Amino acid sequence: MVEELKETVCKANLELVAKGMVIYTWGNVSGIDRDKELVVIKPSGVAYEGMAPEDMVVVDLISGNRVEGRWKPSSDTATHLELYRRYREIGGIVHTHSVHAVAFAQAGMDIPALGTTHADYFYGNIPCTRELDEDEVKAGYEKNIGRVIVETIERYGYDPMDVPGIVVKGHGPFAWGKSPKEAVYHGVVLEKVAEMDIKTLMLNSESRTARYVLDKHYKRKHGPGAYYGQIKQN
Amino acid sequence: MVEELKETVCKANLELVAKGMVIYTWGNVSGIDRDKELVVIKPSGVAYEGMAPEDMVVVDLISGNRVEGRWKPSSDTATHLELYRRYREIGGIVHTHSVHAVAFAQAGMDIPALGTTHADYFYGNIPCTRELDEDEVKAGYEKNIGRVIVETIERYGYDPMDVPGIVVKGHGPFAWGKSPKEAVYHGVVLEKVAEMDIKTLMLNSESRTARYVLDKHYKRKHGPGAYYGQIKQN
Amino acid sequence: MVEELKETVCKANLELVAKGMVIYTWGNVSGIDRDKELVVIKPSGVAYEGMAPEDMVVVDLISGNRVEGRWKPSSDTATHLELYRRYREIGGIVHTHSVHAVAFAQAGMDIPALGTTHADYFYGNIPCTRELDEDEVKAGYEKNIGRVIVETIERYGYDPMDVPGIVVKGHGPFAWGKSPKEAVYHGVVLEKVAEMDIKTLMLNSESRTARYVLDKHYKRKHGPGAYYGQIKQN
Amino acid sequence: MVEELKETVCKANLELVAKGMVIYTWGNVSGIDRDKELVVIKPSGVAYEGMAPEDMVVVDLISGNRVEGRWKPSSDTATHLELYRRYREIGGIVHTHSVHAVAFAQAGMDIPALGTTHADYFYGNIPCTRELDEDEVKAGYEKNIGRVIVETIERYGYDPMDVPGIVVKGHGPFAWGKSPKEAVYHGVVLEKVAEMDIKTLMLNSESRTARYVLDKHYKRKHGPGAYYGQIKQN
Repeated sequence: MVEELKETVCKANLELVAKGMVIYTWGNVSGIDRDKELVVIKPSGVAYEGMAPEDMVVVDLISGNRVEGRWKPSSDTATHLELYRRYREIGGIVHTHSVHAVAFAQAGMDIPALGTTHADYFYGNIPCTRELDEDEVKAGYEKNIGRVIVETIERYGYDPMDVPGIVVKGHGPFAWGKSPKEAVYHGVVLEKVAEMDIKTLMLNSESRTARYVLDKHYKRKHGPGAYYGQIKQN
Repeated sequence: MVEELKETVCKANLELVAKGMVIYTWGNVSGIDRDKELVVIKPSGVAYEGMAPEDMVVVDLISGNRVEGRWKPSSDTATHLELYRRYREIGGIVHTHSVHAVAFAQAGMDIPALGTTHADYFYGNIPCTRELDEDEVKAGYEKNIGRVIVETIERYGYDPMDVPGIVVKGHGPFAWGKSPKEAVYHGVVLEKVAEMDIKTLMLNSESRTARYVLDKHYKRKHGPGAYYGQIKQN
Repeated sequence: MVEELKETVCKANLELVAKGMVIYTWGNVSGIDRDKELVVIKPSGVAYEGMAPEDMVVVDLISGNRVEGRWKPSSDTATHLELYRRYREIGGIVHTHSVHAVAFAQAGMDIPALGTTHADYFYGNIPCTRELDEDEVKAGYEKNIGRVIVETIERYGYDPMDVPGIVVKGHGPFAWGKSPKEAVYHGVVLEKVAEMDIKTLMLNSESRTARYVLDKHYKRKHGPGAYYGQIKQN
Repeated sequence: MVEELKETVCKANLELVAKGMVIYTWGNVSGIDRDKELVVIKPSGVAYEGMAPEDMVVVDLISGNRVEGRWKPSSDTATHLELYRRYREIGGIVHTHSVHAVAFAQAGMDIPALGTTHADYFYGNIPCTRELDEDEVKAGYEKNIGRVIVETIERYGYDPMDVPGIVVKGHGPFAWGKSPKEAVYHGVVLEKVAEMDIKTLMLNSESRTARYVLDKHYKRKHGPGAYYGQIKQN
């Protein structure tokens, strides 16, 4: 059905372990086949050790129903689907409980754009969503997380591919990209930037970097005038 | 006598090393055979390297006497026994000096429920006990640690299986579960949550997460309405 | 052409990975052949894994043009060249986004000389440059980073070989040495000293060490009266 | 001459690397043969990689002269000798630049006895020495470090075997024990305790643990009434 995507998604999930982003069953990566409208995602509550492509779960993008796989899909599946439905350009999504990103989520703070490492990947502050209200939590919780992520992206006026990550208030980070691999990449960078920022703010709580410096770094890597990296390199 | 339990307990002790929770001879894990009323625990002051099931010590639940093994049991044995006696549902206990949990213990502070990672495992703040008084320390110290843990759980009105861990003032964390393996699991999560919380409080000392969000996370993983993970998985 | 230097520079780049200084494609090391006036540098945006000497790019010191190699050189090449042109004694340069050094860069703070670890390698505070102005960023950005580094070294009245590193405001550290290997060495020490200093300042924001202690440490390792290490050892 | 001691000291030095206590040529361990009045110590500025027993340097306790070995001894040799001369019970000494201990040294603060991990090994605060004055630094610097360590131990009224470590103001930690192996052990614990304490003080700058708790822990491991560990175990 989507064998190649299952391999890609499984590999991206295992990359989370290799990068020290998850322990036990925490976190999940998904990917989408836009032609078939099928999403492949990690199973719920299954350990990474020994995980294989055949453990991945295939879910229908529109209905959210499982169409293949012996496991239940990640409990965060409804969040992933909401993002895939809203943003056609997203090809992969990752969710983790990486420590420094969670600290910003728990503190209810945006991860501020304090320097060029941030600006190389995220064109503006990485937003923190508002807290869900009680009704949003009681029914359709995971879907509503997806909705509050979309709401936040809209409120900031962001193109989601320019700021490919967010922290959900009290919860943790989601990141995305053109592929599951790129989603993991953005999740790892988001965590590293969060670590840099906590340490920066401890030294100087008033830290700021000029907007034109941040613009320069983003634009030398992304868009028509980019000159970082090799031609067609991605 | 209890050969399988000795293997289980030995393996759980070595898992502490693999997870970076202990150095040298620090920490200990125990498990109980409720039918035989026997507790298996790590020997006192013996290094983890090369530790084998036959090094485990078997202790009588009621008398506290060693009934098998060539070593003296962990000096914390009396604490473990007190918990096993009071709570029949506990099947394994772990004690470590993991850094971030110790920081809360030394600071005399509860590990606050600041987010969903915490709520996935601990249904409320992880309490810090009061300090023992001089008499409690002078005689029956380790047993009195067990008692103050019980006293604290009661004071908070907790079901110990809903909040399977605590920090002892000035000392460090104890965690427990249905099995030695689950006890170690809870100990590792407790340490990770403590790390997240220190970093969160550095960013925002007023951090809070709504009770209904924490409830939602605990209940989607535990109890009759749980939907996280696979059927019968645990 | 400069085969040996390509091996040296490649090895120095891979050493950044081994020391935990870089992830993905971050960072770069270069080296110079002063006789041939050729600089060898890491290619832009290429991952470290599988990197080989033949991936290194050779650039002309004076013109900045690529004279050998199948890849585009690091986007930071113009910064490296500016430093090689200004300081003949520099034989190797490294740039990373190591976390603690970046924290000082983002905070816009010098890494203060708080102790003997610092003084063993850096004879005075490690400066933080001023922020570039908008014109300096818009045109010739990377070259202007080189210029602001030189400007800062001059403003501090430093011999660059006595303080072989700097942090660029909002960006991150550059370090250098007589060779690519020594540049990496100084980059690693700069990161370690930055980590020590953040933790020191958290304990005591007024920390200071007497100038004569710092002098002693630098001079027992460097210059005519040095007695640390072995004769001719370097 | 002292072949076995050279092996022991070499192994203890390499243990520093295994425990993540040193990088490059930082740190040193020594041991003493009290009968022969010979001290074996790491060579100065030599890397740990590939270090072998025959690289160790043998120095005369009384004169401080090298009596065997092809390298110059550690530049800190005079400090080690001063401690061996003053305290006959010391059998091994370690010096490192481990990060958290250095933070206390640079902050000019004692490592406070905030909990039982500390009390298991150190019977009271781990002192920070005063800063040396300019004359003490200019001539006989390393010997004067030894003297200020002794002066501090005396000022605190400590038995050096009850508090087997110290931090030298602006510099870093020294630790000792009955053997080179035990010295390294104490150095590692000192670093871990320093890390716990920084994190504790960030949570609660007023943290204290009752003296009778600290006493209890030290005494259950040390002295005539000790009951931690196995009989004759050390």
